This record gives sequence, C-alpha cells and structure tokens, in this order.
Amino acid sequence: MGTNRLEAFSDGVIAVIITIMVLEMKVPHGEGVETLVPAIPIFLSYILSFVYLGIYWNNHHHMLHACQKVTGSMLWANLHLLFWLSLIPFATGWMGENHFAAGPSALYGVVLLMAAVAYWILQQLIIASQGPDSILKKAVGRDWKGRLSPILYAVAIPVAFWWQWVSLTLYVFVALLWLIPDRRIENILRKAER
Amino acid sequence: MGTNRLEAFSDGVIAVIITIMVLEMKVPHGEGVETLVPAIPIFLSYILSFVYLGIYWNNHHHMLHACQKVTGSMLWANLHLLFWLSLIPFATGWMGENHFAAGPSALYGVVLLMAAVAYWILQQLIIASQGPDSILKKAVGRDWKGRLSPILYAVAIPVAFWWQWVSLTLYVFVALLWLIPDRRIENILRKAER
Amino acid sequence: MGTNRLEAFSDGVIAVIITIMVLEMKVPHGEGVETLVPAIPIFLSYILSFVYLGIYWNNHHHMLHACQKVTGSMLWANLHLLFWLSLIPFATGWMGENHFAAGPSALYGVVLLMAAVAYWILQQLIIASQGPDSILKKAVGRDWKGRLSPILYAVAIPVAFWWQWVSLTLYVFVALLWLIPDRRIENILRKAER
Amino acid sequence: MGTNRLEAFSDGVIAVIITIMVLEMKVPHGEGVETLVPAIPIFLSYILSFVYLGIYWNNHHHMLHACQKVTGSMLWANLHLLFWLSLIPFATGWMGENHFAAGPSALYGVVLLMAAVAYWILQQLIIASQGPDSILKKAVGRDWKGRLSPILYAVAIPVAFWWQWVSLTLYVFVALLWLIPDRRIENILRKAER
Repeated sequence: MGTNRLEAFSDGVIAVIITIMVLEMKVPHGEGVETLVPAIPIFLSYILSFVYLGIYWNNHHHMLHACQKVTGSMLWANLHLLFWLSLIPFATGWMGENHFAAGPSALYGVVLLMAAVAYWILQQLIIASQGPDSILKKAVGRDWKGRLSPILYAVAIPVAFWWQWVSLTLYVFVALLWLIPDRRIENILRKAER
Repeated sequence: MGTNRLEAFSDGVIAVIITIMVLEMKVPHGEGVETLVPAIPIFLSYILSFVYLGIYWNNHHHMLHACQKVTGSMLWANLHLLFWLSLIPFATGWMGENHFAAGPSALYGVVLLMAAVAYWILQQLIIASQGPDSILKKAVGRDWKGRLSPILYAVAIPVAFWWQWVSLTLYVFVALLWLIPDRRIENILRKAER
Repeated sequence: MGTNRLEAFSDGVIAVIITIMVLEMKVPHGEGVETLVPAIPIFLSYILSFVYLGIYWNNHHHMLHACQKVTGSMLWANLHLLFWLSLIPFATGWMGENHFAAGPSALYGVVLLMAAVAYWILQQLIIASQGPDSILKKAVGRDWKGRLSPILYAVAIPVAFWWQWVSLTLYVFVALLWLIPDRRIENILRKAER
Repeated sequence: MGTNRLEAFSDGVIAVIITIMVLEMKVPHGEGVETLVPAIPIFLSYILSFVYLGIYWNNHHHMLHACQKVTGSMLWANLHLLFWLSLIPFATGWMGENHFAAGPSALYGVVLLMAAVAYWILQQLIIASQGPDSILKKAVGRDWKGRLSPILYAVAIPVAFWWQWVSLTLYVFVALLWLIPDRRIENILRKAER
C-alpha cells in the first residue's frame, strides 16, 4: 500500500486545522483600529501555531517521502499524530484569549509535547518497517532536534506556572530550530538516487 | 471510472468532519487550569469520535483498495455513508456537553448504527459489482465484526435510557474491536498479487 | 492543462461546504430527546442540501470526466459555480431556522437557480472548447433535466411567497429527478472507448 | 521533489479559506426578506474576497505549472503566502460587519498587500531556482500586474482613513485587472512544448 492516500488525508486534516484556527480570532465589534488591540495576543499565538503546523506538515512531507509502503500501525500512528495536532487550535485559542497566562501556556506545551511524541512514534514505526538499511534512519541520523524538542517542551510545561514567558521563549526557540528546513532527509535521498 | 476521485472526496469530507469536531470544544473563558474541568467529558467524547472516524477512514481505505471500478450507485452509497459520518460532530457535541446523559448517548448510538448500515450497503454494492469471484468478498470473509457491530449499537440505543454507561461501554468496546487493523483485506490482497 | 487540479480543488470546496453545513445544526442545550424537536426542520433542510451538493459533486465528476483540457474561462466558470454552491449552507440554515418560511424558501430557490445557471455555463464552455464533435455534447444530449431544473426553480421562487410548500415540493422533486445517476455520460463514454 | 503535494496542500488550504469565509455571514434571525438587508455589505465583501482567493488559486495554479522541483525555501514561501490568505476571512468579516468603515477597509488592504508580497517572494524563489533560462521568468515577463498591484494596495491603505470608497474602488479595480486570465504563462508554456 502506497503513501499517497495517507499523505492526502494528512494534508487535508492539517489544511483544515491550520485554517479553522483563524476562526478563533473573532471579528471585533467596533470599527476603530484600536478594537484590534485585544486581538493582538490571539494573533501572536496564531502565528506561532501556524508556524508549528507548517513545520509538522513540512517534516511529515519529507518523512513520508522516505517511506515506500504503509502498514496498518503506521496509519494509526499517523492518526494519533493528527489527533494531537487537531488540539492545537483549542490550545492556541485558550492561550491567546488569556494573554499567555500560566495554565494555557502550560497546556500549549502539553499539546506540543504529545504531538512531538506522536511524530517520534510514527518515525520509529517507519524506520522499523524499513529494516537495518532504513533510508529514513540514515536521513534522520542522530536526530538531535527530534530528541531535544520534547525535552524542552517537558521543561517548559511546569516552568509555565512560575515564569510563563520562559516557556513561551522555549516554544519560539524550538520553532526557530525547526524552521531551518530539514536538509538531512533531502541530502540522503539525493545520494540514494545516485 | 476509477476510485481516485471517490477516495479524494471521501478523504476530504472525513478530514473536515474530524477537524470541525474540535470546534465543539469551546475555549474556556477563565485562565485557570480548573476551567478545563467542564471540558473533560467533551474531550472524552471527542477522543471516542476521533477513533471512530479514524476506523471508518481506515476501513474505507482498505475497502476501496479492493475495488477497481466505481458505479453510480456506489457514489451514492458512499455519499450516504458520509452523510451519517457528518452527523458525528453534532452527536458528539451533544453527548459531551450533557455529560453522557441518556438521550444524547442514545442518539450517538443511532448515528453509529446508521453509519454502520451505510458502510455495509456500500460494501455489498462493491461485492455485487465484482461478481462471484469478488476479491472484497473473500477479504471480508464471514465479516463477524461488521455483523456484530450494528447488533451491539442496536442494543446500546434503548439501553442508554436506563444505564447509559452500559451503552458507552459498548461503544468503546466496538471501537477497540475495530482498532485492531483489518489485516484480512491486506492478506487477501497480498495473496491475489502473487 | 489537465483537469486534475480543477477536480481536486472543486472536491475540496464541495467537501468543506457539505461538512460546515452541519455546523448550522447547533447542539441543543438540554439533554432531553425533546430538545431535538426544534432541530428537525434544520435537519430536513440539511438532508435536502446534502443531496443537492451530492448531485452537483456527482454530475461535476461525470462532466469533467468528459473533458480533457481546461481553459482559463473554465477555471472561472468553475469558481462561479463553487461560489453559488458555497451559499447553500447560508440559505439552508436560514430556511431551517425559520421552519421553511416564505422568504428563506424563496432565497433557497434563488441559490439553486444561480448554481444551475453556473453549471450550465461551465457545461457550455466545455462543449464549445471541444468543437463540433464534442463528447460532452453527445453525452448531455437534449439535456432535458438541465433545461427543466432552472425553469422549476424560477417558478418556485415567486410561488414561495404564497404557497411555500409548493416550492419545497418542487425542490425535492428536482432533487429526485437528478438522484437517478446520470447514465447518459457513462454510456457515451463507454461507446467512445470502444 | 515534485510540486504535487505542495499543490494539493495549497488547494486544501485555499478551499477551506474560501468556504469558511461564508461562516462570517451569520444566518439572520428573522424570516422576512428585509432581515437580509444588514447582510448585504457582508455579502459584497464576501464576493470581493471570493474573487481575490479565486485569482490567487488561479495564478498559483499557473505558477506551479511552470515549476518542476520544489525546494525547502519554496515550501516556506508558500506557507507564508497561505498565512496571509488565511487572514482574508477575518479582514473580510470585519470590513463587511462595519459597512466598509475606514479602519477595516485599511486592514483589508494590508492583508492584500502582504499576500501580494508573499506571492512575489514565492515567484522570485521559483525563478531563481530555475536559473537564467527560467521558464517562469519568461512567462511572467515584465510582470506589470504583479508590480502595479502592491503599489495600488499601498496607496489604498492610508487613503482608506479619509476616503475609504477610493480604497475599495482600488481593490475592485485590481481584482478586475487579474480576472482577465493570465494567458502569458499559458502562451509561453505552449511555445516551450513545441
């Protein structure tokens, strides 16, 4: 079974998630520019979540590119990942509406952590299915980003209850870490094609 | 006529259904973690429905994999299935908001029952179109899961008005039954390819 | 330029339209089964619109199957069709919430009429682009359904202000007319392949 | 890496954006036709945004048609474009609800300007990746529309605070400018195929 329909479905779900998130930004009732001010934290949290969903889409894209056949457990690991991603609009809306308060900022970290764990499980399943010469395993290499991110989220969650700005800085930092496109997989694939 | 566009449209609809369901989880207005407590039943019902939609997507995926050409009646049987699936967010939201009360739990069972019937009709149409050597028929075999599920839903619906927890246990039980990936179709297809 | 991306985009838009329509069915606030009663007219209007969108998707599917290359004007005629289809959830919600009152029932007819006109324009553009031996022209034939439907909608619109049930009967009648799968195109295509 | 998944994801996002925009048109609570009157400005702003999103989808379609391989930076430039397009429903809703008041009309221009800039960045990245014989560069030519549009938006933004109808006229004018299908790319591609 090929990866086509898995990709198409994941794309569909991520496309809807990324777009309905904008529905959390309620249209202000006044017409003055100053009525936009309360929407600023919601807008900032929207940008952060948009970037995170973009990163997941991007990496998912590369990961499935290094995968030839899909097993039943991969389908479910993928749905598990989509489940946690689907909670991002909720966590984003709560965090934005409460101006990055402690609790919402911690919950945001929980959702990011669980999504990262779900991504890692999917990656391990693909690597395991490819056997010892796994092209994805080579591509991912030591995977320091994939290992560091959940640690930073796990740190950020309890910290949010004392200094939530530290947590938010960690979320932004991890996002920037991943924004650098994942050239590892591209490089390995290129070598494999030669 | 191939199955491509039917798959793509079904994927699109299921992707939207699975994602708009999260809109039923309204962002709480307070910032304390305790404001999340009322959302817990909604969250639990969301998980259950997410798993059910995942199961339908998964099985639909396998079923269409065992189907080569699509007839007009299949298109409509598929739309009929999507119709009942599209009611899952409504039933989920009502059940979650009312903390799994009797009426909403019964309605949830009605929607699951009708979706199961619609799935069965689609399956029968594909089998009929494939003639006596139907590859799908062999794959589905005695189809004990497909026969047992609607019976359990039909039992759960009236039971919900007395002991709704029994009904909910039945819904969870059927979901677990299906969570085991449907290796039957995979196996038969593998043999057919040899 | 092929029809693939046009189909994919149309499928996406129709999938979203068909699914967000269910958001108009607000989750009732009570937990009793009787709280569903006010939702019944909304549910009925949802069924009607679901069937109409299914018909459009179905016919659109067949029509593009008989079209090889897409021109710029077809892209816009297709967007024009999607525009009117995108108003169906609004018209459906208004009609359902007001228990099929005169005004909303007339507006529903206006949207159906405009969608039918938009569909006809797209069809004519494809036929024109295919020249005198147009495969779609042969498939559509005298197109009595396509000619009759807008006439019936046009009748139903003013009638709604006196006897809206006549209008609603006309909408249901036209839907049933189209529910019979459009075998014409299938037949012609089959002959062309021989 | 091919353009397929990039196209599919972009199509998905644009399809959702174009459709959820209609959710801003709230179903009126009365049943009289006169209750539709307050929805007229929202409807007009919906038409304008629908046309703009149609133009972007259309041009994006043509642009990716002239692009063979996708780099990591193109993926991000594309997400950047989708980000600004995703704000169109918000800006549309605010402008429509406030009957084209000054502030909302200016914000609408800001979103259009940023989307135009994002489109231009994506176009430049594709051209740069194609080297000196870039087929897209030839197709775009002097790109007077692409250069003029952001200038007109930039003029319209401050002007909105004094004469917002001038700004709105500019938005409509630019839309009409683009409605004429972009035959340039089609022509160059046709020549390249010979």
